[in-house]
Amino acid sequence: MDKNNVILYSYFRSSSAYRVRLALNLKQIPYQYRAVHLLKNGGEQTHEEFKKLNPQGQIPCLIHQGITLSQSMAILFYLDEMKNDQPLFPIPHRHHIIQACEIINSGTQPLQNLSVLQELGVQFKATQADKDQWSQKWIRLGLQAFETLIKPFSGSYCFGNQATAADCYLIPQIYNAHRFKVDLNEFPVLKKIDEYCCQQLEFIRAAPIHQPDAPEDFKEN
Amino acid sequence: MDKNNVILYSYFRSSSAYRVRLALNLKQIPYQYRAVHLLKNGGEQTHEEFKKLNPQGQIPCLIHQGITLSQSMAILFYLDEMKNDQPLFPIPHRHHIIQACEIINSGTQPLQNLSVLQELGVQFKATQADKDQWSQKWIRLGLQAFETLIKPFSGSYCFGNQATAADCYLIPQIYNAHRFKVDLNEFPVLKKIDEYCCQQLEFIRAAPIHQPDAPEDFKEN
Repeated sequence: MDKNNVILYSYFRSSSAYRVRLALNLKQIPYQYRAVHLLKNGGEQTHEEFKKLNPQGQIPCLIHQGITLSQSMAILFYLDEMKNDQPLFPIPHRHHIIQACEIINSGTQPLQNLSVLQELGVQFKATQADKDQWSQKWIRLGLQAFETLIKPFSGSYCFGNQATAADCYLIPQIYNAHRFKVDLNEFPVLKKIDEYCCQQLEFIRAAPIHQPDAPEDFKEN
Repeated sequence: MDKNNVILYSYFRSSSAYRVRLALNLKQIPYQYRAVHLLKNGGEQTHEEFKKLNPQGQIPCLIHQGITLSQSMAILFYLDEMKNDQPLFPIPHRHHIIQACEIINSGTQPLQNLSVLQELGVQFKATQADKDQWSQKWIRLGLQAFETLIKPFSGSYCFGNQATAADCYLIPQIYNAHRFKVDLNEFPVLKKIDEYCCQQLEFIRAAPIHQPDAPEDFKEN
């Protein structure tokens, strides 16, 4: 597959874009990286030009052969069906993998994303400490549910010894958990998987610190 | 398929359970309905007995042949792959259908669900008017993005003239929009689809007012 065929709109620190970078790496699909800065210029994702690609004004956004897709789950299914090897949602645990992804995708991350924290400030005059407390609550609930779900299936990765979509969601959420100072010792199974994943090349290459738009002086967490 | 083979844990007013009821009806899969009351007894979904089924303590939850699944997207994919006719995620629009579902599943509904509104009250002393304002903001943003995405594909339903998963997400979200007094005249395409869907038998049978746990004196919106 030609690198020029796949374009990913991303922001180095976005956990949703991080999921798609992981999926692209795990499936060994080369891609062009296009940075969208979520804070500069009032947020480049809100500009009309970008909203033509994604009316929701959010990254990640992927373009391939004239198809423009947003929402990380839609992109992961697309990548998985466009290239069959290294399945992201393999049988026999396919539907529990989707459930695990959604615990984060729908049940956790939306409650602590940038626009929601900004709105807490606007509507409720939330301070940074308030926002941290709010985020910690949802991250802890999400990780507790995730750990209970995957525990019987886990190996080096969430489901056995091969990376799946569940790892593409877990690792960026743990990255966020660090940012919001959630104690990971509560989640020994997840902590062990995170430590293993973060030593694998596909995961290292997808990390925020290694993206082309990460500032030179950017320190992890 | 034997009705006793599929069990759905549901609450009549939950928009996430409503999605699964729609999917079951569209795929003509009979099921046993088990009511979980989200408000009585401190919320039956938080009881230990229910959390053995879903550690996240949320409905919907589906049981079939020894498999217990939560998260509406995981359940819809499971149903779609267990019974091939009446596909919920048909080609050629499969991945845009997933994107549309996620605009609601991840981008809209989590921000206005019961536990989040309760937490706004606890942490920020939000009044009912504050909670309505908060919910309206996210519902309007979500429906705007949804309308822009599906407009080129829409027919009687979101994607052409056959119901898909996108309709299973849209109709319950519009039900919530009514509850939070969002003006649907802003979304003429969605309004027309809603009016059409709400006349179809599968949709009528899945509506909150027709569930066994809807109180006798319950009035729609």
